[in-house]
Amino acid sequence: MLNFEYDNKTKIIFGKNTEVEVGNYTKLHGKKVLLHYGRNSIKKYGLYNSVIASLKENNIEFVELGGVQANPRIALAKEGIELSKKENVDFILAVGGGSVIDSAKAIALGHYYEGDAWEHFFIQGNQPTKVLPVGVVLTLPAAGSESSVVTVMTKKDGEIKKGYHHDSLRPVFAILNPELTYTLPNYQTSCGVVDIIAHVFERYFSNTENVELTDRLCEGIMTTVIKNGPIALENNEDYASRAEIMWAGALAHNGILGTGRVEDWASHAIEHQLSAIFDLAHGAGLAIIFPAWMKYVYRHDLPRFTMFANKVFGVEVNESNLEETSLKGIEMLEEFYKSLDMPIRMSEVGINEDSIEIMASKTTQFTQQIGNFVKLNKQDIINIYKLAL
Amino acid sequence: MLNFEYDNKTKIIFGKNTEVEVGNYTKLHGKKVLLHYGRNSIKKYGLYNSVIASLKENNIEFVELGGVQANPRIALAKEGIELSKKENVDFILAVGGGSVIDSAKAIALGHYYEGDAWEHFFIQGNQPTKVLPVGVVLTLPAAGSESSVVTVMTKKDGEIKKGYHHDSLRPVFAILNPELTYTLPNYQTSCGVVDIIAHVFERYFSNTENVELTDRLCEGIMTTVIKNGPIALENNEDYASRAEIMWAGALAHNGILGTGRVEDWASHAIEHQLSAIFDLAHGAGLAIIFPAWMKYVYRHDLPRFTMFANKVFGVEVNESNLEETSLKGIEMLEEFYKSLDMPIRMSEVGINEDSIEIMASKTTQFTQQIGNFVKLNKQDIINIYKLAL
Repeated sequence: MLNFEYDNKTKIIFGKNTEVEVGNYTKLHGKKVLLHYGRNSIKKYGLYNSVIASLKENNIEFVELGGVQANPRIALAKEGIELSKKENVDFILAVGGGSVIDSAKAIALGHYYEGDAWEHFFIQGNQPTKVLPVGVVLTLPAAGSESSVVTVMTKKDGEIKKGYHHDSLRPVFAILNPELTYTLPNYQTSCGVVDIIAHVFERYFSNTENVELTDRLCEGIMTTVIKNGPIALENNEDYASRAEIMWAGALAHNGILGTGRVEDWASHAIEHQLSAIFDLAHGAGLAIIFPAWMKYVYRHDLPRFTMFANKVFGVEVNESNLEETSLKGIEMLEEFYKSLDMPIRMSEVGINEDSIEIMASKTTQFTQQIGNFVKLNKQDIINIYKLAL
Repeated sequence: MLNFEYDNKTKIIFGKNTEVEVGNYTKLHGKKVLLHYGRNSIKKYGLYNSVIASLKENNIEFVELGGVQANPRIALAKEGIELSKKENVDFILAVGGGSVIDSAKAIALGHYYEGDAWEHFFIQGNQPTKVLPVGVVLTLPAAGSESSVVTVMTKKDGEIKKGYHHDSLRPVFAILNPELTYTLPNYQTSCGVVDIIAHVFERYFSNTENVELTDRLCEGIMTTVIKNGPIALENNEDYASRAEIMWAGALAHNGILGTGRVEDWASHAIEHQLSAIFDLAHGAGLAIIFPAWMKYVYRHDLPRFTMFANKVFGVEVNESNLEETSLKGIEMLEEFYKSLDMPIRMSEVGINEDSIEIMASKTTQFTQQIGNFVKLNKQDIINIYKLAL
């Protein structure tokens, strides 16, 4: 186990009907709010009205900016930054999924900065001196952004998707009501499940030794989500499975699972090209990339892939052939993704070999190598895309 | 899963040599410190000097109060409260195990209160308006007090042991260096392991349905500690096992495992009489009480006790006889405690039947029933003590 520091300021408010209290939590942090959301769903299902009512009840002023889309665009966030400055807001309230929260974090970052926030933070990686506090009402368990330090934004004109992380970006509160996920299309629920598991993978596949405790926590989160994902798809209004998935989504990415271990994150970088260029949902992209990545790297640590197969999918260990056990685990993962109606090959989403070179170039645009479990250069990344065809 | 709120302000600083940075973390919160510790061990092994050096380096003034013993006494905490007021300290630094931290929390509670802190907080259960911040350098993974909201104090003249919890009692930082546990006597390491597992039990044995995620996290912590406890006893300077135990100790009691579920805490209340009256180490008392409690209540939920036996101790499930599987799990737990050289019966520590009546009376002194998994009245408690004879 490596030395680490960990703290997490996000207050989680979890459970039925909790969103009606959003004003009570907001007023602890701000008086004038930028209410940030996506497209129509929060209005369609009444969440918008509940949030507005709670803000009004607590005498909180607000201005609004909707329209956040999947793979949230820096252009909209820049609008938000201008609005937040002009209106002198002191709090950003994100009502939505990871895209809305990430966009809210980008606005929070830019509020106190005078220049181009994309260039300054995302491209140059500078530290902020001050950011606005962000609060969350979560509608889609997936990205884990509700209690993470990360935001991932897309600059469409250059088709660049970039992450930025800073401790100050952890939301001050996150309201998680599993009932709000009842109306999600199954495709989005599935993408969320894939994303949650992917966040665990990025920590689980590590070369750091003696990390048994976090290994066990990772496995616990994976098995829970793998069991409950299909239940939620089958019965969209099953509170129990929705709750397991929602809490798992936050814990998978709040930083606990990575304590004391080197994380990987190659697959996320490889996937980002699929979603940035083809606007594929991030979860669907991960369902395609992770099995390919695994097939490319599993020989690097057969005992770990054997452990994965056994502990997560219950594959019986063949001690004389760990390779077979490892491959069986990867196969089970693909079967699981298929059971969620997720694509597992690029061809299923219309991406073919012609795009591989450009995607691999973009993946290595800012760095020659990615990943830590196995360091990958551009040729490795090309090979992984080929395995994903 | 029940509705819940969760947040945890404690910053964890984990790993080798981290204690030399204590001044850097302290100065973020205070300028004049009450340094609180136990008896000789921190001086004997050089920790005292490291801490003092770091405080001086950071120009932090300090006064000292040592002498905290196991089952920390409210009398010493009252001395600490007087000293903290007289010296106008603005921070309490606890260097030690759970007893020292609990005592530091009691001082932090009392600092801003004019009357009798024991009576006001512990007995009457009043809320504090303000408490001093507490920082921790942990030397014994066990109580989990380093990132918990709880303090448990003992008033010796009445032989009363009482817990008190409040969000403001979470330490602002906790430095966890597994190397500092190398010099622990094996008896203390064992008591710590028992205590950590007990904190998981108090959450795991719950009637709340659909809590799979936290069930899995509980099992992950239990299996890790059960595996690594004996390794640390065998080789006191094995960093890996010491680290697993230390991080597990914090996670077992930081509140995550109890999210969304009703906790039990009957066994802790029943044990408190053993440690309050006979000054037995809390961990040793728990090793005696938990198997007895389990034997008394397991029929209440055979599937859960079967799951425990299977997931934690690898007992094969006999579907046609869950009772047998459950009992086998309890037997394995007793065997595990014995392997740690822990007592599993009161007779081993010189407590006999004559004390049962008074212990049961004290357990029900402030409440007619204890526990939630199974509600226990005085006669139930007597029966459990008898099973522990």
